[in-house]
Amino acid sequence: MERKLYHGTAYYPELWDERTMEEDIRYMKEAGINVVRMGEFAWAKMEPEQDKIDLSFFAAIIRKLYENGIQTIMCTPTPTPPIWLSHNHPERMFVDAEGRTMSHGARQHACTNHPFYRERSRMVIEALAKAVGRLPGVIGWQTDNEFKCHVAECYCETCKGLWHEWLRARYGTIEKLNEAWGTQIWSQLYQSFKQVPQPVRTPFLHNSSLSTMYRMFSRDKIAEFQDKQLAVIRRYSDAPITHNDAIGFQSNHERMFANLDFASFDGYPNTDQYMILLMNYDLWRNVKPGVPFWVMETSTSHNGHLQGYQKTHKNGFLTAEAVAAYALGAQGFSYWLWRQQRTGCEQPHGAVLSAWGKPTVGYQNVQRTEQARKEIEPLILSTKPVQAELAITWSDSAKVFFQTESLENLTYQSLIVDWYTMVAETGLHRDLLFENADLDGHKVLMSPFMPYMSDAYLERAKAFVEEGGIWIVGPMSGGRTEEHTVHMDAGLGKLDELAGVETLYTFPVTDTGTVGHAFGEAAGLSLWSALFEAKGATVIGTVEGGAAPETTFLTEKRVGKGKIVMLGSMPEGEQGRTLLRKLVNRYAEEAGVTVRSEASVGTAVAPRISADGSLYWFVINMDGNGGCVILPRQGVDALMGEPVPAGRLEVGPYSYRAIKFISTHTMY
Amino acid sequence: MERKLYHGTAYYPELWDERTMEEDIRYMKEAGINVVRMGEFAWAKMEPEQDKIDLSFFAAIIRKLYENGIQTIMCTPTPTPPIWLSHNHPERMFVDAEGRTMSHGARQHACTNHPFYRERSRMVIEALAKAVGRLPGVIGWQTDNEFKCHVAECYCETCKGLWHEWLRARYGTIEKLNEAWGTQIWSQLYQSFKQVPQPVRTPFLHNSSLSTMYRMFSRDKIAEFQDKQLAVIRRYSDAPITHNDAIGFQSNHERMFANLDFASFDGYPNTDQYMILLMNYDLWRNVKPGVPFWVMETSTSHNGHLQGYQKTHKNGFLTAEAVAAYALGAQGFSYWLWRQQRTGCEQPHGAVLSAWGKPTVGYQNVQRTEQARKEIEPLILSTKPVQAELAITWSDSAKVFFQTESLENLTYQSLIVDWYTMVAETGLHRDLLFENADLDGHKVLMSPFMPYMSDAYLERAKAFVEEGGIWIVGPMSGGRTEEHTVHMDAGLGKLDELAGVETLYTFPVTDTGTVGHAFGEAAGLSLWSALFEAKGATVIGTVEGGAAPETTFLTEKRVGKGKIVMLGSMPEGEQGRTLLRKLVNRYAEEAGVTVRSEASVGTAVAPRISADGSLYWFVINMDGNGGCVILPRQGVDALMGEPVPAGRLEVGPYSYRAIKFISTHTMY
Amino acid sequence: MERKLYHGTAYYPELWDERTMEEDIRYMKEAGINVVRMGEFAWAKMEPEQDKIDLSFFAAIIRKLYENGIQTIMCTPTPTPPIWLSHNHPERMFVDAEGRTMSHGARQHACTNHPFYRERSRMVIEALAKAVGRLPGVIGWQTDNEFKCHVAECYCETCKGLWHEWLRARYGTIEKLNEAWGTQIWSQLYQSFKQVPQPVRTPFLHNSSLSTMYRMFSRDKIAEFQDKQLAVIRRYSDAPITHNDAIGFQSNHERMFANLDFASFDGYPNTDQYMILLMNYDLWRNVKPGVPFWVMETSTSHNGHLQGYQKTHKNGFLTAEAVAAYALGAQGFSYWLWRQQRTGCEQPHGAVLSAWGKPTVGYQNVQRTEQARKEIEPLILSTKPVQAELAITWSDSAKVFFQTESLENLTYQSLIVDWYTMVAETGLHRDLLFENADLDGHKVLMSPFMPYMSDAYLERAKAFVEEGGIWIVGPMSGGRTEEHTVHMDAGLGKLDELAGVETLYTFPVTDTGTVGHAFGEAAGLSLWSALFEAKGATVIGTVEGGAAPETTFLTEKRVGKGKIVMLGSMPEGEQGRTLLRKLVNRYAEEAGVTVRSEASVGTAVAPRISADGSLYWFVINMDGNGGCVILPRQGVDALMGEPVPAGRLEVGPYSYRAIKFISTHTMY
Repeated sequence: MERKLYHGTAYYPELWDERTMEEDIRYMKEAGINVVRMGEFAWAKMEPEQDKIDLSFFAAIIRKLYENGIQTIMCTPTPTPPIWLSHNHPERMFVDAEGRTMSHGARQHACTNHPFYRERSRMVIEALAKAVGRLPGVIGWQTDNEFKCHVAECYCETCKGLWHEWLRARYGTIEKLNEAWGTQIWSQLYQSFKQVPQPVRTPFLHNSSLSTMYRMFSRDKIAEFQDKQLAVIRRYSDAPITHNDAIGFQSNHERMFANLDFASFDGYPNTDQYMILLMNYDLWRNVKPGVPFWVMETSTSHNGHLQGYQKTHKNGFLTAEAVAAYALGAQGFSYWLWRQQRTGCEQPHGAVLSAWGKPTVGYQNVQRTEQARKEIEPLILSTKPVQAELAITWSDSAKVFFQTESLENLTYQSLIVDWYTMVAETGLHRDLLFENADLDGHKVLMSPFMPYMSDAYLERAKAFVEEGGIWIVGPMSGGRTEEHTVHMDAGLGKLDELAGVETLYTFPVTDTGTVGHAFGEAAGLSLWSALFEAKGATVIGTVEGGAAPETTFLTEKRVGKGKIVMLGSMPEGEQGRTLLRKLVNRYAEEAGVTVRSEASVGTAVAPRISADGSLYWFVINMDGNGGCVILPRQGVDALMGEPVPAGRLEVGPYSYRAIKFISTHTMY
Repeated sequence: MERKLYHGTAYYPELWDERTMEEDIRYMKEAGINVVRMGEFAWAKMEPEQDKIDLSFFAAIIRKLYENGIQTIMCTPTPTPPIWLSHNHPERMFVDAEGRTMSHGARQHACTNHPFYRERSRMVIEALAKAVGRLPGVIGWQTDNEFKCHVAECYCETCKGLWHEWLRARYGTIEKLNEAWGTQIWSQLYQSFKQVPQPVRTPFLHNSSLSTMYRMFSRDKIAEFQDKQLAVIRRYSDAPITHNDAIGFQSNHERMFANLDFASFDGYPNTDQYMILLMNYDLWRNVKPGVPFWVMETSTSHNGHLQGYQKTHKNGFLTAEAVAAYALGAQGFSYWLWRQQRTGCEQPHGAVLSAWGKPTVGYQNVQRTEQARKEIEPLILSTKPVQAELAITWSDSAKVFFQTESLENLTYQSLIVDWYTMVAETGLHRDLLFENADLDGHKVLMSPFMPYMSDAYLERAKAFVEEGGIWIVGPMSGGRTEEHTVHMDAGLGKLDELAGVETLYTFPVTDTGTVGHAFGEAAGLSLWSALFEAKGATVIGTVEGGAAPETTFLTEKRVGKGKIVMLGSMPEGEQGRTLLRKLVNRYAEEAGVTVRSEASVGTAVAPRISADGSLYWFVINMDGNGGCVILPRQGVDALMGEPVPAGRLEVGPYSYRAIKFISTHTMY
Repeated sequence: MERKLYHGTAYYPELWDERTMEEDIRYMKEAGINVVRMGEFAWAKMEPEQDKIDLSFFAAIIRKLYENGIQTIMCTPTPTPPIWLSHNHPERMFVDAEGRTMSHGARQHACTNHPFYRERSRMVIEALAKAVGRLPGVIGWQTDNEFKCHVAECYCETCKGLWHEWLRARYGTIEKLNEAWGTQIWSQLYQSFKQVPQPVRTPFLHNSSLSTMYRMFSRDKIAEFQDKQLAVIRRYSDAPITHNDAIGFQSNHERMFANLDFASFDGYPNTDQYMILLMNYDLWRNVKPGVPFWVMETSTSHNGHLQGYQKTHKNGFLTAEAVAAYALGAQGFSYWLWRQQRTGCEQPHGAVLSAWGKPTVGYQNVQRTEQARKEIEPLILSTKPVQAELAITWSDSAKVFFQTESLENLTYQSLIVDWYTMVAETGLHRDLLFENADLDGHKVLMSPFMPYMSDAYLERAKAFVEEGGIWIVGPMSGGRTEEHTVHMDAGLGKLDELAGVETLYTFPVTDTGTVGHAFGEAAGLSLWSALFEAKGATVIGTVEGGAAPETTFLTEKRVGKGKIVMLGSMPEGEQGRTLLRKLVNRYAEEAGVTVRSEASVGTAVAPRISADGSLYWFVINMDGNGGCVILPRQGVDALMGEPVPAGRLEVGPYSYRAIKFISTHTMY
């Protein structure tokens, strides 16, 4: 990859004729597109009949684009196997939890664990990597497309066999599985691995361990499939490889990126959902430390398909989305898609050009975005994002645990979005980190909504605290073991002792009139809660009313140079949010967090720093209402060159500013 | 059929003993029933064991009824094949999209395309037609019963084979299908017809072309099945044939009636839904020009089955429903059903008599209706409906296209009902016409919600305009090709040039703050929209705000002696409705439409004309609140004989009046 | 069983190690637990491999508990057959109406009619009964666990064959079935029993008779299965047998208890649902006259599983629940469960101890309950419940008929709960009685929501009336025959003549503006109604407006020494409730009912009587708000010994009082 900001688009040359492609390239140059992504659904173009693989079409188009200054991210075409693979072979297809076998005609209809599919995938990828892997235009690779975006666990016979192998590898003997899962319950007791069912229909719920482990198994296998793709590609290409992931997909995101080279994600927010965008930027920036991430797909105006669509963006939003991405760590910003689909189920999806080759309603926003990209590129390339000092853990295991145990129809994703939004409202800058991420440089670590915390995670968090960090645990964290069972030593396992509490009661407090008091605020408590008695910790939050009035829901305990803060319950409503913001602010202050900014709601600040230590603030209005930020001291408008006084700085609707402060490492 | 108004009922002699039938006939005569419909579910009575066909029972009852002055519409019994056809033969049964095979026990459980079912249907119909086809009591036939009312497309193996044949007949070669459907998308590409799946379960959506074509295939086959029934019946009977259709069923209504002799439909509105009734009358009147239609089924008080029912009619509604039907072009008005079901799943359905042989809550309404029928019969028989000058197209293809592409959970039916209601509120009389209907005598043609417009339709509409008509196109019309793909020449294909516009953008404007201005009104725009730049057309409606503020949503263009009006978006809310009514009024005036009336909401006017050119207005209060109409000049009460002055004429709750004006063709 | 009040818990020794069990026993003694129920899910512990049955574990734990003063109710383990029974044997598994075969892993996954399952059940029960049936600790048995709580009718091939046998036994010949079900309708006509389908998927609804009879068949078979269990147990044990039933389960409750020795049920109300609790007490007390019932399962704080839970009880509720149970006729009150599940899908369910062996949030409520039990035990043991004089029929057939014919999405259970609540608001004490219960001592009988009334029931009710009782029939009662068809002699069959009415019309009156007048009240009428003309009866309630304004919805007729009151429609809203309470009060007064009390809403009164004729009132506040009762004369606080004046007596939140009045049989 070159040292520049990429402005890209998904492109499907296999769908168009040569004349149209000429027109496309002309338009791309006009719009400032310097990279395309292609090939992810083109297996049938590459291998229309079994064993008749021909990649010359794609090699030619890559060359042609390159001659026109447009580089390529090449995809493996595995989400859409050709009809010769699927026709008359139901045993190769994906089967859902209801036992329904998928048909050819859409995407992800094959079982990615079937040996024939695996072997044919390997063959076409190998041919592809050979054919284009060293082409100068190819600057990167993408595996497949949105692994597990439409489907979750497969229940076919192949998977059943692999599931039994996986269990054997994990537990060794059936006795150990029986013990771990407690299968004496309801006479589930297994005599051999081959008896263990996939979690298919029962009159009531399956054992939590079985459900959770089947999800883990499925996540392991899709990562394994990707790893096999990587091995093939790397034999023929040095270009870095990514996958266009999204946090809603049914995979283990940390594991999926373990062997990839750079991070990317697909983001389709509507204009009201800018906070989810920011959260994604704060996550994906940290997936591959030091390597910029990509927004691999986003819509120019709206997404859509035959059965529904999103409301069309307001003008200006797209540019704010892109500038925020670049400022918060992206190198690439790429549209889905270039030219509106002429056929198929995504005809209503927004694009850069219409199917008949004219600018769409999003086109002028693409142009503005290209202008912005050019304007900020020098600043972005000469700086890098300032690391936040506050980290929130994104836990892939938590996502699985909440799927198995959703209690009040909770989803991990929406819980985390709400939590992130609350934190963002404090003005504190923040990183979202995977469970095994390095905590160096962070001062506050938050672990909300993690039913299961691995020993390794606990160890790392403890070390973080001992060296001075403040670790805020909960709500809903720690109550389950690795096997998705209840701890036997204490309510939250080792965490009880570590945090200096005894978990007295775990139960649902929603709607029971239980009120929590802390930091001068009072708020109703909610969700499945752990209420404590302090055993070495200091009581910070007390409980009034409800079923357990003499307890505490919030404690802190000094450990080493830092502190562990236990939050056992979720303060709810506007008062609860105020209480939580006070909590965050208090511990951020105590931890000495200084990377923060004061901005009006809907306006984001991205701090960056240059090699010489100069601090920059990119200020972007994300809500279209315009807003302001308080500059802590005077600076210079880094785009206009004019001095800017300390204090209130206005920013117009969907506009952005870049302010350079005098170099100093002590203030942000 | 005789020249009289029919007052009928569905009758199931196969369910009752002889004594009960005697009682029934006595009651029928008392209630003024002069026709019954029978036989549609009686296959097991006709052929209780395979090959043991005996129609003497029905021949006898038809004779008996005839002796009592009651004529018969005979049905083919194909919706409910006997157990000997279905037992142990899952391959003959209907299979739904989820692959679930239907069981014997209800209706429409057989696959109407299975050769055995087809052959046995032919045999029983032939025997039936032979046995009763020339009986003097038989005045008409009905094929089957409500084809496709419970089921849509069948997915059995028989249908799979026929689907492939149908595709071959349509496309000739698989290459042409691939091109038409753009199957390079998502590697759908087919190598042979036999690989093309039925649109069964996939992880995401099927190709729009495949989904739409499967629906078209299914509609072709059910029409073919009916045609085969017609051929058999006609060999043994000269009586006219109809089918009891309804616009909600999953068939192509225009095609279903192509080879039928008269129109009929089943209407089960509750008392709040009288507008839907009027719409149906305005549609079915025009299906077979010059031939009166029938209301083949309606409930005397309420419909119902084991799992739900409608609220019971207010007293009086039934008579208003019947008088409006006769006045708007019906010859027959028939109840479902005569005697409440003793068994089965429709025991709670309203009837004329209770199962135990007593008048039901609807009985006195039936008596009032018979009184009204007798009162108006001479007037109805000596006049005929005045043709409306404004036509709205009912498009069967549009219904299919919206099923495939529902976008905001839209259904064609509810879109058209809303549109019709808006037009009706202007007081303009209107016809609903099938796509291929003759436009002679109409001055305004409306084509709302037609994603696909055939070349033939475009040609006809263009000719209509050239001869002076005003054609109002849209909203949501013209954006899709016959193959359910996007046009490649322009946003709305040929329509762009024809209407003198360039479709700049097609996208969803709902909820984006886009406001349309026209006729002095401003209204939010909504739904999937096409926004234009005038290229020869005159801008009538301008766009403010939203993502495309510099565009127009409403244009007109003079073509020949007429005009094409393009409406690209749906004005919403009360303001939108006002804007639309102004639009309709303006172009109706400009086109010289005079067939209109001014009545209070809930009161309908049916203009009729006698052979000598006298104009009559039937005025019927449909909402039970009473109302009034403004008589444009003086007339005579055609029922009472008294003079009626010009101006306001009152009509009581659910009452009707018939006013005769002095003969003149220039005013209505 | 001993003559004492039992305070119990469900216990799963098979899930815990010996050390934990020691701890459990210690805690149980501390908490006052004197009985445990065990074994219902432990088949795999009893017979881990086919034919390797070993019951020594359970015999040992029963002995150990007994040594510690804790008795045992032993269960048959049939809800959860081991994996060796289910693995690779789909033909032994439960199949739902959609044809989906259940998997091992939860409960009730086997078909309880499969011969192999039946035989293996018999074998393990026999071994169990032999092993523990005469142990001194075993005071009772429970069959299985909550028969049909997760599943309803099974649709497997075994059941299909048994269904045909059952039909043959019921109807003798297929002709009689055809006649009874009226299968000429829709050509359903069967030629042999083996053709009659199970009510699996059809395009529309099945025949009501088929649907209802399949439910009856299923209910017969599960009762038969239980009977077979009883026969085995009784060969080896004299301890009384029960089943932990609940009115929501898919069985015929009256039939299930016909051969059992004592009644028990599982109750999981949240704190707002105390009225449902009281209704259950009033039902189960009467199931085995003279034998106390048990609350076999209730939660200490909340129920819950992986996918949802109930809000946690307020403190105090549990004790009120228990005291009300004992006072209203219970001998046992037992928790589910003792120790929180460590594994499986019910980890979130409330318990007495946490999985890690500490008191839960419910523990102190268990302690309070034990205190209360000890406090009231002498009073309870020296008295017995006063029989109510007003009876409401609980009809198991009505539950089935409403499942087949739900009309407005009605369920029998919620209709009865509402009716019961209305009656309770009058302060009249009441019994819920099964259809065949003895009516001795009752003065008013209510039969609401009984679509079908057997001849036997009619006879018994008639005799009750002739001897002076007042019988209130309806609403929605009597309109269907045993075969779930419509009567042919009159709208409500024999009831018409008996009650001196002619049922003019049956139809839905909801939402039609129909108003009923009676007792000086006017209320909108609702639901499927029968409106009458009096034919010998006296009109009590007149109808205004709607479709049948000249009718009556409420009549009374003197028959012998009593009266039959016909209520044909449901007065709705607050006015309807007032009208209904007036109706109940009027006829209760007329019948001379004196067992009643005046208490504030949320406070319950349980009258009891001692051997010497002394009357006691237990007054329990159930809503947590505190309340009061009006004492009709002075008494003595039976717990404190202090005199209590007549008039208003206060009772604190969730508190209880016991008042002894001077002995007299004439007043309550």
